[in-house]
Amino acid sequence: MNIVTLAINLGIAAGIIALLYVAYLMYVIFRTSYPRDRAAEIHEYIREAALAFMRSQYTVVTTVFMAITLLLLISGAINRNSLMLNTGLAYFLGALSSAAVSIIGMYTAILTNVRVLSVLKEHNLKRALRIAFRGGSVTGFLVGGVGVLGISLLLKLFGAESASSIEELRAAVTPVLGYAFGASTVALFARVGGGIYTKAADVGSDLVGKVEVGIPEDDPRNPGVIADNVGDNVGDCAGMGADLFESYVESIVAAMSIATFIATEAFNLVAYPLVFATVALLTSIAAVQFVEFSPLREPSRTLTLTSIVGLTLVAVVTYIVGILLGFHHLQGLWVAALSGLIAGGIIGFTSDYFTSPSYKPVKIVAAFSRAGPALTILSGFSMGFYSTFIPTLSIALATLTAYYVGHTTIAGLGLAGVLGGIYSVALAGVGMLAVTSIVVSADAYGPIVDNAAGLAEQAGYPEEVRELADKLDSAGNTMKSISKGYAIGSAALTALALLFTYVSNLKPYLGEVEITTLFSLSRPDVLAGLVIGAAVPALFTAVVVDAVTAAAFVLVEEIRRQFRERPGILEWKEKPDYARAVNIVTRYAIKRLLVPGIIALATPILVGSFLGLRALGGALLGATASGLLLGLFQGNVGNTWDNAKKHIEAGAFGGKGSEAHKAAVIGDTVGDPLKDAAGPSINILIKLMAISSTVFIPFIIAIRTALGLPLL
Amino acid sequence: MNIVTLAINLGIAAGIIALLYVAYLMYVIFRTSYPRDRAAEIHEYIREAALAFMRSQYTVVTTVFMAITLLLLISGAINRNSLMLNTGLAYFLGALSSAAVSIIGMYTAILTNVRVLSVLKEHNLKRALRIAFRGGSVTGFLVGGVGVLGISLLLKLFGAESASSIEELRAAVTPVLGYAFGASTVALFARVGGGIYTKAADVGSDLVGKVEVGIPEDDPRNPGVIADNVGDNVGDCAGMGADLFESYVESIVAAMSIATFIATEAFNLVAYPLVFATVALLTSIAAVQFVEFSPLREPSRTLTLTSIVGLTLVAVVTYIVGILLGFHHLQGLWVAALSGLIAGGIIGFTSDYFTSPSYKPVKIVAAFSRAGPALTILSGFSMGFYSTFIPTLSIALATLTAYYVGHTTIAGLGLAGVLGGIYSVALAGVGMLAVTSIVVSADAYGPIVDNAAGLAEQAGYPEEVRELADKLDSAGNTMKSISKGYAIGSAALTALALLFTYVSNLKPYLGEVEITTLFSLSRPDVLAGLVIGAAVPALFTAVVVDAVTAAAFVLVEEIRRQFRERPGILEWKEKPDYARAVNIVTRYAIKRLLVPGIIALATPILVGSFLGLRALGGALLGATASGLLLGLFQGNVGNTWDNAKKHIEAGAFGGKGSEAHKAAVIGDTVGDPLKDAAGPSINILIKLMAISSTVFIPFIIAIRTALGLPLL
Repeated sequence: MNIVTLAINLGIAAGIIALLYVAYLMYVIFRTSYPRDRAAEIHEYIREAALAFMRSQYTVVTTVFMAITLLLLISGAINRNSLMLNTGLAYFLGALSSAAVSIIGMYTAILTNVRVLSVLKEHNLKRALRIAFRGGSVTGFLVGGVGVLGISLLLKLFGAESASSIEELRAAVTPVLGYAFGASTVALFARVGGGIYTKAADVGSDLVGKVEVGIPEDDPRNPGVIADNVGDNVGDCAGMGADLFESYVESIVAAMSIATFIATEAFNLVAYPLVFATVALLTSIAAVQFVEFSPLREPSRTLTLTSIVGLTLVAVVTYIVGILLGFHHLQGLWVAALSGLIAGGIIGFTSDYFTSPSYKPVKIVAAFSRAGPALTILSGFSMGFYSTFIPTLSIALATLTAYYVGHTTIAGLGLAGVLGGIYSVALAGVGMLAVTSIVVSADAYGPIVDNAAGLAEQAGYPEEVRELADKLDSAGNTMKSISKGYAIGSAALTALALLFTYVSNLKPYLGEVEITTLFSLSRPDVLAGLVIGAAVPALFTAVVVDAVTAAAFVLVEEIRRQFRERPGILEWKEKPDYARAVNIVTRYAIKRLLVPGIIALATPILVGSFLGLRALGGALLGATASGLLLGLFQGNVGNTWDNAKKHIEAGAFGGKGSEAHKAAVIGDTVGDPLKDAAGPSINILIKLMAISSTVFIPFIIAIRTALGLPLL
Repeated sequence: MNIVTLAINLGIAAGIIALLYVAYLMYVIFRTSYPRDRAAEIHEYIREAALAFMRSQYTVVTTVFMAITLLLLISGAINRNSLMLNTGLAYFLGALSSAAVSIIGMYTAILTNVRVLSVLKEHNLKRALRIAFRGGSVTGFLVGGVGVLGISLLLKLFGAESASSIEELRAAVTPVLGYAFGASTVALFARVGGGIYTKAADVGSDLVGKVEVGIPEDDPRNPGVIADNVGDNVGDCAGMGADLFESYVESIVAAMSIATFIATEAFNLVAYPLVFATVALLTSIAAVQFVEFSPLREPSRTLTLTSIVGLTLVAVVTYIVGILLGFHHLQGLWVAALSGLIAGGIIGFTSDYFTSPSYKPVKIVAAFSRAGPALTILSGFSMGFYSTFIPTLSIALATLTAYYVGHTTIAGLGLAGVLGGIYSVALAGVGMLAVTSIVVSADAYGPIVDNAAGLAEQAGYPEEVRELADKLDSAGNTMKSISKGYAIGSAALTALALLFTYVSNLKPYLGEVEITTLFSLSRPDVLAGLVIGAAVPALFTAVVVDAVTAAAFVLVEEIRRQFRERPGILEWKEKPDYARAVNIVTRYAIKRLLVPGIIALATPILVGSFLGLRALGGALLGATASGLLLGLFQGNVGNTWDNAKKHIEAGAFGGKGSEAHKAAVIGDTVGDPLKDAAGPSINILIKLMAISSTVFIPFIIAIRTALGLPLL
């Protein structure tokens, strides 16, 4: 059995094991009974509204991905090009996989939250933590399991096992890029649509409820409250799942694709990323059992420790398995992957430092809030910008380390050094994303306990139960900050790997041109592309924030109208019209879904066709660099404001109702669309631009030829 | 007489003419009498406080630039390297020139504002506009005059006239880069220090005065009012002068320096940028006379038209003079310069569109303010990001156009195509900056009329006079938005030109290495440098905003203390302690001056020494791309909020005192440090990083050699 076949079989086995684990988790969760009270009633509203939104959203998404599938298949059929036909097929399956991961994951999360509540009613905090984490693990291990299984099956289907030359291997690996592209397309719409929905509902409800009328968050008198709860699920849960599923798949496929251009070691190098990811996936299943047996009382510490345990185990086990499987001479690659894994950890903990109420930054922002909302915003602004530096630096250093280690390892074998180096950078991405399942498990835990706390509030549960729920919830917030940083960091590293994939995949079209010196900064097209590319995440942010603001504004008017026309609502005498609020937000989020999608998909084609393939390379890099910056900034600044508000609510600087608190609430509202809509959408934007550029290379070349423009 | 000698003589003559024009303007201004009333008294406070701040500021600045001068001179002496000695000398003169331009310009502005008031007292709006514009023109033509004269004299001094080979020419031109570096060092401190000062004073005064106590802006009861007035001068006036002086000098020197690497046409190509700038300067003197004779009643239209007239005249006259002087075969260069000139126009007018109350963006932000400050901030945020796209695109297209035109023109002469192309990109910078004197004249007009309006308010002038002053002031605001966009756009183009200068100047050290393919995006060091470079403007923004927030917070406490301890102030019975407020702001601004300075100066040396000269090239590009984005965003978003507030104050959405107005005031306060402190400081940051990298090449190489690292 050759090494690629071994990796594929390992991948299939690990994928099936992970899915079995998911099935087991779902069985355990659904077996738990839940209270048939007011909470269940509200829960039913949320479930229905979330499904309704997903239906509308996936109508749009399906149209788009079917159109792209057709484009790929028809071009393949016309040109009798089996590579393109395979790519089209893989694309279709990638889109379906991503949709399945995010829909099943979200649906499970919704079914879990009400069950967490029933356990909390028994005052069993530890069991509640376990069940909530299991709910999150469903998404987490769907990501890993479906990802590894999908890639392995496609490789088998496209004949990677029987490949006997590097060309045959490449022919089997290249179309798998389509799988990643499919996942990326669905992720974009899931993130953007979910992000607009969740934040429009959140901001709109808060502006009238908390700020104007002065009722608490999650108060059932607020007509926007159901929309807000739905938002947590469709935004945080489905969005994050799709986002990291994409990064996960892409990082593996990117490394494999580059490997097919490295002459003699190609088979080993194609196998390694899959083996690494597979081993890490199985190790992760073991690592999360820590939550089941953790002796710690504090939920947030249990979750943090689980991540650290997972990270360490993965590092150790991948090393050992690498040796056992005969990658002795390539252990430098393990170091490359490790550099990514460590960078991921640093990024996560930096985000935590800048956004947790335990450290200085949040306290400073809370303190400045005493001088009014302007200083809340400004001090948050500077913290947000400070928070970008360490993560950026660690990505830069991981890139450098991986490159030089890989360069040396592979050059030591007498192979092309530069390609070996860029292959290793892609491996750093694989390393960073190896713990994806753990991170997603802990992240998806967030919306589950958030909703549980909301349900407890709305159903009028006793004070003690609500306090326990809040405790679970605050642990969720820490993990959310960490995973947000991790998501953008890994997206940036994945985008860099994809940039290299793009560069490598130009090789067959350019013949003798030395691709590694092609993209010189002294070339005006590279430069122009870079400057334009850097501006795209800014434009994208503008469009998404604009959509949230507009939708929130309409919701504000609707909520105000309900309070005005039916004054009984505030006196608990009348029930608000939740459905209307839900419909408004759904309609707006769907309506504003297309423009960001078009920007992401059209930019690479336009830049490539009119400014050339060199300019496109520049644009991808520009978008990645500025996207990393804006993504980190927006994710962190939003969490800093959020926690500054919570810090004040916990009693600092006058506590609830003080001037400082009012200012902090405004900061929190400003941060909401940045951290949960625009910021995370940038992750997808930079990856989608890079993967679609690679897949569209033949199309761009055809357009340039038709326009009479030179190839480059 | 050879062409370089001709250009130098032309430059000296034009420089002297411009300075004579400045002397004439000053004579006319100072001849105008001013009222010896309460306004004169307040004016005296402002003058003194401004001078006190400048003294403190220049104590720090002088220490820094003397240290760098010594470093250059001592290294030159030790190595018996005349190039380095000349660079040190030029550096010193560049720093002095910049200091002279900004100090004289600001001082004249202060002496002008009180005189504008005396003319307004006679209800003569047109004459008041003329005198205010003359005050601005002093700074404007000091920039052009000193710039052209300084460069020309240094070229003469370093023997450019007698150069007979390209090597001799290069030896004369290269040290002039030091002149630009000196200007850059002073500009950094002028911009950052002035920016922190002006915004801390503004935000601090507004937070207590307008927001808490509810007294109008410029109310003499506010203890921070004098500090606020001083700020307009030390920030807007001195800062902008130093900023554009730097860009102006650098764009010319960058093009000249690249030209010295282009074999046979070097002499013509060295001469051309100086000739172009000289002709544009003289044409500008003619163009601004339009203000003197303008038939238009509306001040803002007169100023806009003057800019358009100037732009057109410069385009036409430079073409004709180019032909007359024998640059027939090089008229492609004129097209390259023109592309920059046009891009500058587009950037200015895009800024105007996004920030003027006459267009949709400002109206939208004002409308959203009805739903509270959070939506003011968010809608402004998206407008700010939208506003970056067109300017970025026009810079990218100007770069491409210039490159291809230059490439063709110079390749047509059988010369190195790539160097010809990058030379032309530098020329686009020269073209954009050719109208600097006009832009600065119109911009420096702003603080003059702003202060005049403030004095009218504080001295209790009659309603009609104050209305006329406000009319003048609002014209100043339009010009301020335009010139802010122009400043960052030209800074980005200058930084790109300097990046090329850096690349060209590596040539002598690298021998046979092909510099144009050196900076490939597939290299990890270039990539790591780029990612790190992109993060620097974000870090810089954080530090500056942080400084403003901290200083404003201290001022808030001081103003609150004065109101609390001396209640008579608010009842007009007691005089506030202006001096204490001034001292606090001065102390804070100076204290926070060094960290941003260190970031700007140390980054290139650290990246170059430890990650290498390739990484440094990447870092410069990354910083330029992200700096352009963040600079445009911050400049525009601040003006959008400012004008949304003014739009509401003019009666929209409930007018003054409405909820929308309160929200808009918060937006304005948030925008203040972004638009006037952090945003403009980024202009200098990206240029300073690029010019210091070029000048420090030999130092970085020495450090790398000492550390045993390879050259690249």
